[in-house]
Amino acid sequence: MLEGLMKKEDQEVSRRDLIKGVGIAAVGAGIVSVGGLGIVSKAQAKGRKFDVKKAGDVAYKQYGKVFCAETVAQGLVEAGGIKGLDPSNVFWGHGGVVGWGTACGSLIGAGMVIGHVVDDKKLAQMVVNDVMAFYAYNTLPIYTPKKAIIAEISSATKAGTPLCHISVGRWMKKENVAFFSGPRKERCGRLSADIAIKTAELLNQVADGKYKPTHPINAKTYQITTQENCSDCHGGNTPDLPG
Amino acid sequence: MLEGLMKKEDQEVSRRDLIKGVGIAAVGAGIVSVGGLGIVSKAQAKGRKFDVKKAGDVAYKQYGKVFCAETVAQGLVEAGGIKGLDPSNVFWGHGGVVGWGTACGSLIGAGMVIGHVVDDKKLAQMVVNDVMAFYAYNTLPIYTPKKAIIAEISSATKAGTPLCHISVGRWMKKENVAFFSGPRKERCGRLSADIAIKTAELLNQVADGKYKPTHPINAKTYQITTQENCSDCHGGNTPDLPG
Repeated sequence: MLEGLMKKEDQEVSRRDLIKGVGIAAVGAGIVSVGGLGIVSKAQAKGRKFDVKKAGDVAYKQYGKVFCAETVAQGLVEAGGIKGLDPSNVFWGHGGVVGWGTACGSLIGAGMVIGHVVDDKKLAQMVVNDVMAFYAYNTLPIYTPKKAIIAEISSATKAGTPLCHISVGRWMKKENVAFFSGPRKERCGRLSADIAIKTAELLNQVADGKYKPTHPINAKTYQITTQENCSDCHGGNTPDLPG
Repeated sequence: MLEGLMKKEDQEVSRRDLIKGVGIAAVGAGIVSVGGLGIVSKAQAKGRKFDVKKAGDVAYKQYGKVFCAETVAQGLVEAGGIKGLDPSNVFWGHGGVVGWGTACGSLIGAGMVIGHVVDDKKLAQMVVNDVMAFYAYNTLPIYTPKKAIIAEISSATKAGTPLCHISVGRWMKKENVAFFSGPRKERCGRLSADIAIKTAELLNQVADGKYKPTHPINAKTYQITTQENCSDCHGGNTPDLPG
């Protein structure tokens, strides 16, 4: 974890580095003594806590000044007091990576923060996986500001996929607005808040040692990497599941 | 740029921070004097150079130990001598984000490095955009090792999209192999090398002040975020271009 950073002379040393360096296999079990470098407490080893409400509020309020990927990262950085991670580094994630409509940038922003704060990369990927599933299978946006910043909106939709193109397209169709419109921006700001909140909740579960992965790995289920919304593209010709 | 990092007491300060702090608007024009913090040379302001061959070789050789997103980041970090960016932070990008088949992880790994080293975030997004287009519109993999590490392969395919699902699916069909197979891994290792190489080339152009963006922003062209491979999903019912 970044919050497990410890000073050794002028150099920051992450817990991962410490663990790699001294060959400690067990992580987060009570107090871990690390050579001459000090003590990593259970809390430090498992992560820091996030102010969930702040994560959403900051992500929502910054949207418009910056876009989905950066604003989610910004919300999480501020809500978690994270040092050493510049949210603007992931600016390019907007619109499913610079407008290519691939993974919603909010998910890439969340991924960057999760990868930064969760040392165990296999654990980090499970958290990202569950945020992806949350995005795909919930009717969003959920977040409702006291007062809309950009525009009033009335629709919420289930994307059925983490793809920006389909997600925003479905919402635009229901709300009957253009991509370059105030309501669409408002929707993406609120949705960014949803992703920041969900990510903060899951990272808090990690920090408390209570996180349990929920969504299976799609590539294993389908024997190919996939978004699970097969009929959206394959129509009635969706390939059979293997096995 | 990270290579514009300068020490101020124990704290690393990026050129972006310096510029924000002292309100310098013109960037990279000759020698820039920054308060009492020292001198940022033209070379530092515009970026560092990457060993292009090394970027590809490292990305290829690490694949299998790690996956697409991390191996591209690893190749670029080693080829550019980048400090302060842990490639394993983007492990989760593999398989188009944990096997969801969205943006190929190699592109997310490249994006993380580009965002980290290019201070101007609008410039960074154009570089990412051009790497996306390179991935979509070239027959890959190009990279050919002297000796295959995982398996011999014979096919190369044009994805027509940055989506992992379609990209790897087309290649698997042509090569007639399963996703969880040696040849598919070999293909993704070589493709990762291609993306690391292309990214290193573009970042070297940025460093030399010779980079010119080539691919337009899809969201502006189509008035919705999109991968441009419209008929792959819409078939004959692809919506008309706006305007």
